[in-house]
Formats: sequence, structure tokens, C-alpha cells
Amino acid sequence: MDGGEATDIHALMQRIGADARAAAALLAEAPADQRARALTAAADALERRAVAVLVANAADMEDGRAKGLSAALLDRLLLTPARLAGVAASLRAVAEQPDPVGEVLADWTRPNGLRIRRVRAPIGVVGVIFESRPNVTADAGALCLKAGDAAILRAGSEAFRSAEAIHAALLDGLRAAGLPETAVQLVPTRDRAAVGAMLSEMAAYIDVIVPRGGKSLVARVQAEARVPVFAHLDGICHVYIDRAADEARTRRVVLNAKTRRTGVCGAAECLLIDRAALRLGALAVRDLLDAGVEVRGDEAVRAMDPRVVAAAPDDYGREFLDSIIAARAVDGVDGAIEHIRRHGSSHTESILTEDDAAAARFFARLDSAILMRNASTQFADGGEFGMGAEIGIATGKLHARGPVGAAELTTFRYLVEGNGTIRP
Amino acid sequence: MDGGEATDIHALMQRIGADARAAAALLAEAPADQRARALTAAADALERRAVAVLVANAADMEDGRAKGLSAALLDRLLLTPARLAGVAASLRAVAEQPDPVGEVLADWTRPNGLRIRRVRAPIGVVGVIFESRPNVTADAGALCLKAGDAAILRAGSEAFRSAEAIHAALLDGLRAAGLPETAVQLVPTRDRAAVGAMLSEMAAYIDVIVPRGGKSLVARVQAEARVPVFAHLDGICHVYIDRAADEARTRRVVLNAKTRRTGVCGAAECLLIDRAALRLGALAVRDLLDAGVEVRGDEAVRAMDPRVVAAAPDDYGREFLDSIIAARAVDGVDGAIEHIRRHGSSHTESILTEDDAAAARFFARLDSAILMRNASTQFADGGEFGMGAEIGIATGKLHARGPVGAAELTTFRYLVEGNGTIRP
Repeated sequence: MDGGEATDIHALMQRIGADARAAAALLAEAPADQRARALTAAADALERRAVAVLVANAADMEDGRAKGLSAALLDRLLLTPARLAGVAASLRAVAEQPDPVGEVLADWTRPNGLRIRRVRAPIGVVGVIFESRPNVTADAGALCLKAGDAAILRAGSEAFRSAEAIHAALLDGLRAAGLPETAVQLVPTRDRAAVGAMLSEMAAYIDVIVPRGGKSLVARVQAEARVPVFAHLDGICHVYIDRAADEARTRRVVLNAKTRRTGVCGAAECLLIDRAALRLGALAVRDLLDAGVEVRGDEAVRAMDPRVVAAAPDDYGREFLDSIIAARAVDGVDGAIEHIRRHGSSHTESILTEDDAAAARFFARLDSAILMRNASTQFADGGEFGMGAEIGIATGKLHARGPVGAAELTTFRYLVEGNGTIRP
Repeated sequence: MDGGEATDIHALMQRIGADARAAAALLAEAPADQRARALTAAADALERRAVAVLVANAADMEDGRAKGLSAALLDRLLLTPARLAGVAASLRAVAEQPDPVGEVLADWTRPNGLRIRRVRAPIGVVGVIFESRPNVTADAGALCLKAGDAAILRAGSEAFRSAEAIHAALLDGLRAAGLPETAVQLVPTRDRAAVGAMLSEMAAYIDVIVPRGGKSLVARVQAEARVPVFAHLDGICHVYIDRAADEARTRRVVLNAKTRRTGVCGAAECLLIDRAALRLGALAVRDLLDAGVEVRGDEAVRAMDPRVVAAAPDDYGREFLDSIIAARAVDGVDGAIEHIRRHGSSHTESILTEDDAAAARFFARLDSAILMRNASTQFADGGEFGMGAEIGIATGKLHARGPVGAAELTTFRYLVEGNGTIRP
């Protein structure tokens, strides 16, 4: 990249930031129904523009195949009429959610008469950096708007045209509702210097960055970010079969957790089996093998079925995002907890047990964002949690954890009222 | 600093971090009453150790005078028997607060039968970097313990002995309650390399840093931090006298907001006067002058009294922390909002008005952490908000805002329960 380009990108990103900040001031005062109207109008526009979006996506897919993107990445990139209908449905679902802005989170009066309210307010400007999933354009834009935030979206180059086509529908929606187009901006360049600018130079304009992508993006964000980040790291989700597990529930959940979709961050990547539950564990392992899953096991798991292959040490703590699962025997719930503490990514873990004490211990001693009992890790999803949509699953501990919906994209203020009250 | 020292500090801080992480795992399971018992025992110990603490503080004060610390800094550093009693009272007040850990923040059931609870949990390890106020040792340690967090405290070199003496009382309390001494660690060196280690090398051990100090610390934190930070920036608090202000309330609040204590972050630093309220403004300005405050005004304010001196442009947006206030006339509530947006630090602003519409506009269009009506900015304080104590006033927008008490030092997890529930 030569100096001229760098200056251009720099100037471009500064202008985008200033525009977003100005839009955020207007959005903070825009009534809930105006923001919701923009979303339903955007859903209508997306349906009207469906052919254009699919054509743009076909071009992205062709380039992706030519560049040799993996099948998993191509699947993330692909839009179909059904997937597009899902994107429009998400826009409407977010529009119908209760509006978070202005919600009174707490309200109390002090002995001196001061009334103190904690009230939800927009964060301001949210930057979203994503890679191959074009639907993030709509989901992230919609959630920011619902939260009263301006959004700066940076799509991965492989999804660039698809994102542009979806963004056009969002702009239609904003215009229809009388909101500024700068409320949801898509960075209009594939130049990766734009990511650097968002992470480091735009601290005055961006209040928080939400990165959605693979290890290289995450590593870059961790190294460069001067702006607060809602970390979205790996989803190394564990399922643990306890000695007190129910057979039918367990077999159903293990199979679903691994196979429903293998490319999502809530897919199970490691099966832990209580040494006192190896018989049930073997049934679950055979279910996985029969479904075509490659099981990489330790000695105890290899003894269950000749199709199990030997796990390498780094198969534990690995996010396969594929039809592969690591598996091993552990010494009861404490063994499972120890393994997850060492190899987990604080995303989602599920215990299969009918024993309340074991479940309570699993819940108390692990600090993952989502802990489950007798449920599939594939439920780690904002829509499934009832949030309408999500930008992703935050694995950090501050502000946002688990599914990031509109409420997680707000902050709060204290509003304090007195009657000439002074402090002694 | 030579290489040997650097290695020593590095190794020391890594050990402190690992010890804190291990203590955090124990604290997360320690029952509420055990953690509260440690705090009341620490309060008892502090009273027993009062003479030793005052002797240590006298040594710090002597060094501080020799080093030529300002009167404001020496006042922050000074401990008296009364102030020490206040520190012990804060420990007991925090102990008596409701315990945040395990609080169910939300609880809902999805149509498929999944029960989802959002439950408060400790953050883990909190790093606190402070400067001259030795009482932060007790307040920060107590709030972290209340939140179930392990604390790593780094006291400024000028308060080093006072902090050590107070820390000894906290250790007594931890021992008395059967909790590990590593739950609240004080960095045992004045070497400033320890701050660098906390900000950059200890990301694996520290979940969040709370910096409490002046501009140089804040600048260093912003430049170096690789760990999330609860920003505590300047308290450039504004008081605005609206045309619909009540005379008695206004005069009382303006005087209190500036003069009750001038060295606290909630002290008013700028008085904005509606051009339609110059008569009342002049009364308030004369009250301040009569109380010995230096008023630096624009032309309109200088016309009120010959004692008013001319304000320099950079007097607006300046944190005096002294008996000085900037003042100027503005065009109504919108003029005040514009001034505060340009010069404020998102800390605390107060509007003096009997007009509900003006107050609503002030509340809606400013995004400071605390907005007040007819109340003194000096109430910007966790104790005054009813939180028992505070580490400080956060001015960032993420996670913690306004007074940082024990609840702000927690995070949450989702606990999800099904009955073999799978996702279609």
C-alpha cells in the first residue's frame, strides 16, 4: 500500500467516524417507533431487492470458489432465497422486540430525598468487523438501530458485494423512516487498512468494536485495538455425560449438539464422558459415528468402537467447526470441570445429568458465558434466547456476555432529582 | 532500571497474578457471610492497628512535604483518627450491603421449555492502580471481596506505607474469616514498572483494571493498557442555572457544588448561566466570591462583580480541583448542552430549573454518567448513591458507569436448563 492510499483510507475512515457520531446524536433522540419503522421498511426492501442480493452473492461465491475458500466458508457466505427470507424475518423480529432505550433499570430514593434512576441509553457508535457471513450486515445494523446506536460495518472482502446489496435495503429502510443514512454505514472499501483504522485511530468516534471472525481477525483485534472490544473468541463448547445422565436425553442432545450445524460457534467440539458412564458414552459415540462424525478419542473412547481414531493432544481445546469431535473419559464432574477450565473458551458447556448436585457444581465452578443442563449447546444463539437476533456470542466478562442483542448494545445513565438538595 | 530489576518485577508480578487467579477460584465459591465476616474483622483490625496506620501515614506525609507535594495532594494523603474511623465504617457498610454474587438478574422460559437465568457472578481478578489516597486500599479491597473478586492493589509511592498499614488490617480480616491472604494483594514495591506489568503483561491474570489518579496515570493507562479498563477520567462537572431556576435552591446548590470539597471529582468546575437568568446568576456568583472562590468569567459574568477575573479559553473544560470556577453565559438549555458536549468529561452535570421540559431536554441530550436536577454535583459518590462505598466514578460507557461499587465489579452467566432439549 503506498502513502497516497493510506492517506485516503485515513481520511475516509475519519469522515465515516464523524458522520456516525453525528448520526448517533440524532438516533439517541429518535423515538422507538421511528427506529422500528426503519427496520420493517428495510425488511420490505430486502424482499424487493432479493434478486439483486442473490446476484451479488453469486458473484461473491464465484470469486470465493476461484480463491479456493473452504466448503465451510463457502457455506457461511452462501445466500439462498430461504436464507434471505430468514434475514428479513430477523429484521422484523428485532423491530418487534421491546425497545431498550429509556428502560428504567433501577429507581430508588435516598433518605435525603434524592431520587436516583438508572436508565438505559444508547452506547453511541458501534463498529462491527465481520468476515464471510453477509447476513451480519442486516443483523448487526438492525440491533444497533434498535439500541439507538449508529453502526459502522466492515464486511470481509469475500462477502463485500453481498453486504453492499443488503446494506442498500437498510438504507431504503432508514430513508423510509426519515432517519439519516449515516446511521448504518458500510465501509466502502475492501482495503484491510480500514480495519486498522477502526481498531486504533477511531477511538474518538467508535465506542465499542464487535469483531466477528476467525482466529486471524481475533489475533489482530487483540494486538491492535485501542477501542473497547466485545470479544467473540472461539466456541470450544463441551458436552459432559455424567454418571447420572438419562440415556434417551443424552443420546438426543449429544447428537444434536455436534451435528445440527457443525460450522456454528455453539457446535460441540469435545465430548467428556464420566468414567462411571462409559456404557452410555459408548452409545452416544456410536450415534455420532453412525451419523458420519469423525470421533477422536483417548484410550477409553477408542475401546468403544474401532472407528474411533486416536486424538492428538491439541485436539482438546480445538474448534473444528466441522464434522469432527474430540472425546475422552474424565473422573466425574470434577474431572469435567478441570478439563473445561484448561481447554475451554468460556463460551458454552452442557452437562447431561439427572443429579441436581452435579449440575449445581458444574454451574458454580465454571465461568463460561453460557452453562447448560440437559440441553444442546446449539441453543447458544440470541434468537433462541428470545433476543430477536444477535451479533454474536461474547466470551469476554465485561458488559456483554453470551448472545449480544440490542440490550447489550446499550449503556445507562444515572438521572438524579433533588429539590435544591446539597451534600453536608 | 537495569535488566535484573526488570526481570525481578516481571517475575514478581507474574507470581502475584497467578496467586490472584487461584484466590479468585476460591472466592467465587466462598459464601457471602464468609466474605462479609472478613470485612467486619478487617474493620476491627483497622481500629486495633490505628496507631500503626497513623504512624505510617505520618512518615508518608513527611516524605510528601519534603518532595513538595501540593496542599491538595497532601490533603488526599492525610489520615486522621476521624478519617480512619470513616475507613472502618466503610468496611462495615460494605459488609452489610446485600451480596451481589448469585443474584438472579433475569429468569425466563422459552416456548420449547428451556429455562434461562442470567445470574450475577464475580469478574475474577480486579487490578486497582491508585495514587495518593490511602483509603482506596480498604475501599477497593472491600468492594472486590464483596463482589467475590480477587484484588491486586497498586498504591502510589507517596501513599505506600499508609497503604501497607491498612492492607495489614485487610489481611487480618481475611485470616480471621479463613480466606486466602492472596485474595487482596498489595504490590510490595514502589517500582513504577509494576504499573506497566499490570497494564500489559498480566492480561491472563487481570480481568479489569480500575485506574484512580491524575492525568499522567490516565494517559499512561490509555497508551499502554492491553487489559480492559474502567476509565476514571476527569470530573469536569458543570452546573447550569436555567431561566426557570428557583433562587434559594440555586444559590444553595451552586455554593455547595463548588465549595463543600474542592478536591473531589464531583466538585463543580464550571458554572453556566442562562442569558435570561443573569440576575440570579449574579447572586450565585457573588455567593461564590464571598466564600473566597476565584471566579473566572466571560464578559457577561465579569459585568456582575469587579472581583470576577477574565477566563482564558482553556479555563473551560479544565478540572481545577481547587477553589476556582469557570463561569459563562449561555443561550438557554441548548446553549448549556452545547457547551457541555464540547467541554465536559461525561462525569456529572446538574441543571437548576423548575421547568420540567428544560430538565427533560438536559437529561435526554447529554450522555454524562450522572445527570442531576436541583441537586449538588458533590453527590456523585457511591456512598451517597447508597452503595456503601465506591472505587471511583467511571466515565466510560461500557460495563461500569458512575459510582463503581460491588455490583459493578461483577459479571453474569447464563444458566440454561432443559430436559434433553434439542434445537431443530
